[in-house]
Amino acid sequence: MRLYSLKRFVVGRPLPTAQSRHERLGRATGLAIFASDPLSSNAYATEEILHVLILAGALALSYSLPIAAGIAALILIVIASYRQTIRAYPHGGGAYIVAKDNLGVFPSLIAGAALLTDYVLTVAVSVAAGVAAVTSAIPELFPFRVALCVGAVIGVALANLRGVRESGRLFALPTYVFVVSVLGMVAYGLVSTALGWLPEAPYEPHPPGLEGIGLFLLLRAFAAGCTALTGIEAVSDGVPAFRPPEAQNARTVMAWLGAMTVTMFLGITYLAFDFGIVPSANETVVSKIARRVFGGGFFYFEIQAVTMLILLLAANTSFADFPRLSFFMARDGFMPRQFRAQGDRLVFSNGIVILAGLAILLLIGFQGDTHALLPLYAIGVFISFTVSQSGMVRRSLRLREEGWWWRIWFSAVGATVTGMVLLTLVVTKFIEGAWIVIALIPTLVVTFLMTRHHYRDVAVQLSLEDFAPPPPISHTVLVLVGDLHRGVVRALQYAQTLSPSAKAVYVETDPEQTRRLEERWGKWGMGVPLIVLTSPYRSLLGPLFEYIDHLQQRDEHHVVTIVLPEFIPARWWQHLMHNQTALLIKGSLLFRKNVIVTDVPYHLRH
Amino acid sequence: MRLYSLKRFVVGRPLPTAQSRHERLGRATGLAIFASDPLSSNAYATEEILHVLILAGALALSYSLPIAAGIAALILIVIASYRQTIRAYPHGGGAYIVAKDNLGVFPSLIAGAALLTDYVLTVAVSVAAGVAAVTSAIPELFPFRVALCVGAVIGVALANLRGVRESGRLFALPTYVFVVSVLGMVAYGLVSTALGWLPEAPYEPHPPGLEGIGLFLLLRAFAAGCTALTGIEAVSDGVPAFRPPEAQNARTVMAWLGAMTVTMFLGITYLAFDFGIVPSANETVVSKIARRVFGGGFFYFEIQAVTMLILLLAANTSFADFPRLSFFMARDGFMPRQFRAQGDRLVFSNGIVILAGLAILLLIGFQGDTHALLPLYAIGVFISFTVSQSGMVRRSLRLREEGWWWRIWFSAVGATVTGMVLLTLVVTKFIEGAWIVIALIPTLVVTFLMTRHHYRDVAVQLSLEDFAPPPPISHTVLVLVGDLHRGVVRALQYAQTLSPSAKAVYVETDPEQTRRLEERWGKWGMGVPLIVLTSPYRSLLGPLFEYIDHLQQRDEHHVVTIVLPEFIPARWWQHLMHNQTALLIKGSLLFRKNVIVTDVPYHLRH
Repeated sequence: MRLYSLKRFVVGRPLPTAQSRHERLGRATGLAIFASDPLSSNAYATEEILHVLILAGALALSYSLPIAAGIAALILIVIASYRQTIRAYPHGGGAYIVAKDNLGVFPSLIAGAALLTDYVLTVAVSVAAGVAAVTSAIPELFPFRVALCVGAVIGVALANLRGVRESGRLFALPTYVFVVSVLGMVAYGLVSTALGWLPEAPYEPHPPGLEGIGLFLLLRAFAAGCTALTGIEAVSDGVPAFRPPEAQNARTVMAWLGAMTVTMFLGITYLAFDFGIVPSANETVVSKIARRVFGGGFFYFEIQAVTMLILLLAANTSFADFPRLSFFMARDGFMPRQFRAQGDRLVFSNGIVILAGLAILLLIGFQGDTHALLPLYAIGVFISFTVSQSGMVRRSLRLREEGWWWRIWFSAVGATVTGMVLLTLVVTKFIEGAWIVIALIPTLVVTFLMTRHHYRDVAVQLSLEDFAPPPPISHTVLVLVGDLHRGVVRALQYAQTLSPSAKAVYVETDPEQTRRLEERWGKWGMGVPLIVLTSPYRSLLGPLFEYIDHLQQRDEHHVVTIVLPEFIPARWWQHLMHNQTALLIKGSLLFRKNVIVTDVPYHLRH
Repeated sequence: MRLYSLKRFVVGRPLPTAQSRHERLGRATGLAIFASDPLSSNAYATEEILHVLILAGALALSYSLPIAAGIAALILIVIASYRQTIRAYPHGGGAYIVAKDNLGVFPSLIAGAALLTDYVLTVAVSVAAGVAAVTSAIPELFPFRVALCVGAVIGVALANLRGVRESGRLFALPTYVFVVSVLGMVAYGLVSTALGWLPEAPYEPHPPGLEGIGLFLLLRAFAAGCTALTGIEAVSDGVPAFRPPEAQNARTVMAWLGAMTVTMFLGITYLAFDFGIVPSANETVVSKIARRVFGGGFFYFEIQAVTMLILLLAANTSFADFPRLSFFMARDGFMPRQFRAQGDRLVFSNGIVILAGLAILLLIGFQGDTHALLPLYAIGVFISFTVSQSGMVRRSLRLREEGWWWRIWFSAVGATVTGMVLLTLVVTKFIEGAWIVIALIPTLVVTFLMTRHHYRDVAVQLSLEDFAPPPPISHTVLVLVGDLHRGVVRALQYAQTLSPSAKAVYVETDPEQTRRLEERWGKWGMGVPLIVLTSPYRSLLGPLFEYIDHLQQRDEHHVVTIVLPEFIPARWWQHLMHNQTALLIKGSLLFRKNVIVTDVPYHLRH
């Protein structure tokens, strides 16, 4: 009861099913909600490119410009391709659904595995980057970054367990403030540099180049920057959340989103180049840019704060996506059915808790280091891009709707380009951590298939088709007694209501105690016959099992009910004072056929 | 089943009760068994004195000689006093029993709390000191000391869970080798110094004195050295283990023990002084003496190895003492009755596991540092000395047996001296950690009293005295169904054998599903009526509880049996794939009066 009150306090009172409704989003709110994930990647994408280039020395940093241009083009291609998906799937077309629809079970499971992995990483990466924004501004907090990360995940998870139905308006504000602040910083930075307003740049030590500039290094830098694409698919999953005309609104939002992401990404990358910024471990590149543009004043802290906020919102989107995809996959039998259960606040609580747990494990394992987590991240995104766009190509070829012959090019170019990027990612990031994801995805796919096999098998075993109504049950009731007290008397009475031929069974460890029990049995045994079993090894279960065997010797379908008198202390800690014999007996009889165990509780008053 | 095999492999096959017998000990074996604990304290007692004196600079180290002499005198007084206890309690006279017999419940509980605390500390301190002997010889192991400590505790605990009945001979050897080795080292060291055989001492930096030499510092040094007395009371607990005449043999062993401890302690302290040894964090004083006497050769490693062995044996004695005292105290109702249960190897398994767990927590908490643990140690020992000797004084005054008027002096001097030392310990070691023990002991005493109160209260509540045989039970059987499959059919059949008027209950969350269930109920419902309850909040329990309330409205003594159909997967991991609804229902109905829950398992084949 006290646990229950705590739960109520933390997650709120239960909501009735009738209250389940969909708040529809306009374009401006929809953009704010779906934009947090893709826009927030601007907090780390540029930095990742510079982290690779710096290996070839400070001069190599200028290659960030052509690489960023390539990534911007990639973003536009993917956006164009996804606008086709939205048109085709106005009820929501995540990679799992598109693949299931057009490519079959196996590709859909690969997409599902990639997406689930990805959602976990979105939480871990976004929270780690959000905390990095904070520790860049307040270096004193750097030693506590793992604790801050874990706290943030728990906070977001609790908010989601309550249900974030008021989310629209709440989320719009930070997203727009982020966009305005970053674009403002970029514009002001560009103007200031052009007009020579900025003070002399502080000296930053440039590490010496360790590698030459080669094709592989440039590909690695490109692959690192591809993290800028994470979250772009979110709109296509959520089309039904828009006001009608849903697809049209979603397509418009997708276009705006593309324009905003590309502008911010190119702006940040250009300023980083122009300021000669060198990436370092305990201050983010965005923080360095902001510090250079604004000094250390209000606007600097505002940029850091709003960066952290939008990253938390990005983490938050996974708390909607992961439980929803788990629900779809559980409905198809590929995941445990617990993921189908709506909690009493109408949210999929199990998915939320599992997601938070996995993200926390990752954050602890990688010590809250964004840079270490990112090589795991982009693989899943590009797997789902490639599978989803390939599915769209297949769909166009199959349905041949009006205009298919030119629309198919968007999807085909999208699939080809993202597929090639995926290959690049696998090759360049394999040893940095991508192998974990590459090993994990087939494991997950096999687990999904085994899960469905198990459920189908259970359904067959429980099916009533071709099931002959079984013969009536024959039945013996045994009361297991260790002593004679009020609880036992009650259990004897109860056993008599179950069967007039109920017997009591006592396992003897000390003949003297047996004698005393038998003496009192006459008065308090309620007329139930007492059977004494001897136990040379002091074991309770051995002799009991032998006796059950004996009863079932003639007919193995004979049912034996074991009635256990159990007194229930009034307070939980008092349980510690009593042998948990009943639990032990129930545990050991659980796997015995045709044995049913019934506790008869006797409640103590204090 | 697999868990069971693992247990058998680790602790061995069960032993029949008839095999419970007592191996009686001769004086030589008895000495070996009981000596390990008191003798092993020579591994750290001298070092503790030096650790305090060094605070006043290297010159203050010479005060170790008078302090050691004082402690030697104290040992002799305590030994003389305990020889009286053995005479009076030939069946074993631990402090708990002596206090219960002569001083009453409250002092006996103080003694019990002190002893239990002490046994845990004996394990922690001995294992830490044993590992320190190893890491002194092999400094490479120093970083792994906590892991080594935990491993050693687990090893000793497992040996005790098997039962150490072959212990006598096994234990005699290391004890005697330790005595011979240490006395040999002392003798050889004295002779070598006298004849000038030893090489020049290596330079050791002497830290500057931080405090002046005052009475308080000397008292602290004395208190630190009192750890030499730990374990001395062991013989008096174990008198019945000796061959007849038990008391006479035990008294002789006690005298030998005193002589050996005092000789070793004085010898080690003198050599430490003579060699000018300064205590340091990562090499023990005994190791330094041995290194000086033998160089780094075979004898040096032999001393370290045998020191470690005897310390493990000392830890081992607590694994006999703690479960035995817990058994006595549980028999008197002061500790949970689980401590009375003998495991299938005839040992008190629960006591062993709890002792090991607590010692491991201490070792981890104090990072396996003997020096940090020791201030907690001696308090418990001296509390039990004082209580036990006071009890003996009271006993002599009460019984006035022949010769009481001169024998009482031994006990009275013992009680007074140990009481004064106890006060010194409390004052000088309070802030170093003794406060933990001083706070813990009253807490334990209160817990003991609450435990006995609870058991007495339960006994009264369950007592059949003045108990009116209750009226026969009236009874409703409900089968809770969520679906209709073979397992449910079986549960319906079972419910019909319990009561011909059994009903089925279904909690509706979706009217469409209800319709489908009702359609199939005609064919497979086994003639049991189906009751449908609606649930606006998707909660299963709410509507069920209301229905039970409704049934019990007229007569709160009316018993409702809830039959739960439950299918049992063939493999444990398959449980993860199914809702644990049955568990939830059982948990929430556990505290409801007059409701009995019965699982009807349906076993899946694969």
